[in-house]
Amino acid sequence: MIYFDNSATTCPSKGCIDAVTGELLLFANPSSVHTAGWEARKRLEANRAVIAKTLSASADQLIFTASATEADNMALIGAANAKKRRGKTVIITDSEHPAVSQSALKLESDGFKVVRIPTKGGALDLSAIESVCSSGDVILSSLMHVNNETGAVYDVKAANTLIKRLCPEALCHCDCVQSYLKYPVSLQGLCADMISISAHKVCGPKGIAALVLKKGVRILPIIHGGGQESTLRSGTENSPGIAGFAAAATEGFENMEKNKAIVLNLKAIIEDSFKENKLISFNRPPVQSPWIISMQVKGFKSEVLLRMLSDKGIFVSAGSACSSKNKKSPILKAFGLSDAEADCTVRISFSHTNTADECREFTRKLNEIIK
Amino acid sequence: MIYFDNSATTCPSKGCIDAVTGELLLFANPSSVHTAGWEARKRLEANRAVIAKTLSASADQLIFTASATEADNMALIGAANAKKRRGKTVIITDSEHPAVSQSALKLESDGFKVVRIPTKGGALDLSAIESVCSSGDVILSSLMHVNNETGAVYDVKAANTLIKRLCPEALCHCDCVQSYLKYPVSLQGLCADMISISAHKVCGPKGIAALVLKKGVRILPIIHGGGQESTLRSGTENSPGIAGFAAAATEGFENMEKNKAIVLNLKAIIEDSFKENKLISFNRPPVQSPWIISMQVKGFKSEVLLRMLSDKGIFVSAGSACSSKNKKSPILKAFGLSDAEADCTVRISFSHTNTADECREFTRKLNEIIK
Repeated sequence: MIYFDNSATTCPSKGCIDAVTGELLLFANPSSVHTAGWEARKRLEANRAVIAKTLSASADQLIFTASATEADNMALIGAANAKKRRGKTVIITDSEHPAVSQSALKLESDGFKVVRIPTKGGALDLSAIESVCSSGDVILSSLMHVNNETGAVYDVKAANTLIKRLCPEALCHCDCVQSYLKYPVSLQGLCADMISISAHKVCGPKGIAALVLKKGVRILPIIHGGGQESTLRSGTENSPGIAGFAAAATEGFENMEKNKAIVLNLKAIIEDSFKENKLISFNRPPVQSPWIISMQVKGFKSEVLLRMLSDKGIFVSAGSACSSKNKKSPILKAFGLSDAEADCTVRISFSHTNTADECREFTRKLNEIIK
Repeated sequence: MIYFDNSATTCPSKGCIDAVTGELLLFANPSSVHTAGWEARKRLEANRAVIAKTLSASADQLIFTASATEADNMALIGAANAKKRRGKTVIITDSEHPAVSQSALKLESDGFKVVRIPTKGGALDLSAIESVCSSGDVILSSLMHVNNETGAVYDVKAANTLIKRLCPEALCHCDCVQSYLKYPVSLQGLCADMISISAHKVCGPKGIAALVLKKGVRILPIIHGGGQESTLRSGTENSPGIAGFAAAATEGFENMEKNKAIVLNLKAIIEDSFKENKLISFNRPPVQSPWIISMQVKGFKSEVLLRMLSDKGIFVSAGSACSSKNKKSPILKAFGLSDAEADCTVRISFSHTNTADECREFTRKLNEIIK
């Protein structure tokens, strides 16, 4: 099989699987008051520190969650409710992952005002942000770093700097699920107060993710109980998942530049091979992640093409897996595609474990299908 | 080491670890639209059906969460908000796990009225329930099945039957974390609408749990996003965790009677050996889970005793791991113990993997310490 759906999920590394298994065998509850519990706590905190380091953060800034979706919910709902006495306006982009856009809908139903900043052509409309912020009522923003469907890299730092200048009270969140360990990601670098990351997008296990919090930022929990994770996220810690996350994060951080060079080469192979093909065109934002190709194959509905490729053992996607039940992608529309163009768009998303041979095999098989 | 802290967490079974590893290696996103995704979905749904069967439920009644804490939060916050136009009163016991008692506090801060039913002596005060329900305003109850500190088995069926007779609109939730796979657990058997269970208490992995929902019961999600888990709990499914949970649930369900016989014997060994010892007494609710011993060791603060036992390689606990930061246990107080009695109470919690030799070693070492 050729797996080009790495923006949906990645294959856990061997180091990750070994770390998960190791922790499953040791197993004690990190909150237990005995040697086995204390050792479980020590391992967990060491893993937390390892992951924090890849974000230029300290361990106490990292709150583990079960998914980036949960981290996004915490950031939006937890921060908006903590700030609700200061204002009611929340800014997101019109191309967010459902974890953010649906949390924003929840905030709207609770009386907040949500403004969706256009990303037409694949860039943040800074003048729209400036105009919203001129009211001074903005308490929260959530602007994603790299778009999961188009690969657009948004200038979040510029946007957040603008927001903070005009609304100094506002908290800035950034969904970094598609940029973490692909670009340097840090609160400072993005001028952000909160960042969401996910393990299973970076060769870690499913079921574990994190919210990174700037020191001093106060948000409210959405899950209440035993007070784990600095009282922000109760529930027995998923120590095997955290161990796997730490192993994957270490590998990804050490090899960030090398991995980027690999996928840049893979992307070039596919783009070059279709350069002369009039049936194929590429959706290209001004800055695009090398991990993602968004291409239109004219005359083929993406759902049909996906199935034909799948039958040949090649796995790509149309939009995001989390939106796979929805027929129309709001993200491609926001990018500026017509319905017809969006309908024939497929996403190829790489991992550093993909090979040049796989890319050549893919172009050969796609050409067969087109003919 | 002798591990008698199985109410805090259990050692994952070999079958569980193999299932987790197997799913980590296969890895696709169950929402992806290609063969690898469809196969991941098929495996996930098969595992869901396997777990549902152990609860006499159908697969579509099982909503996976990351922890029983999250399931409890969903049940309380999600159901109370779905029902808020019908009434404002919520019933819990005064001995709930923090996942329920803290969710109830959150509901109070949102304007709901929470009534805490006494459990003095280790039994539900049915007359108190009757008195609260006579108002007709009760929309939700959450009464735990087996208490995690005293092992008290509450007559939840009688309580829920009473609640439903007096307040037919009310939804009844039951935290079955300490009873699942120890007693037969089902919605029908407990006259409940919602049940929370956890994998890591039954030799499954940490990071995965479930809420079981009666058909037709409508609650609101607390995590919003891609609409996974019938839109009730968004986020990429933790398929490795679910696979491990299913393996553990199968083993536990098949061996339920056999495992019960094992721990009954272990409990008898320890209780019998201290029968004549005047320094030791047992906290005995009218019906007690054979998996739990709650005992007072007079003259020893539990935190000191825990440390002395831990130094000898024996791991027990005072209260629950999730409450381990709190000095006083509200549960032991609710049971009727004085502060002095609660302060010297330790909990021994068994697994079927414990042995009679371990029990004899424990009694020998505890006697050494006392002398």
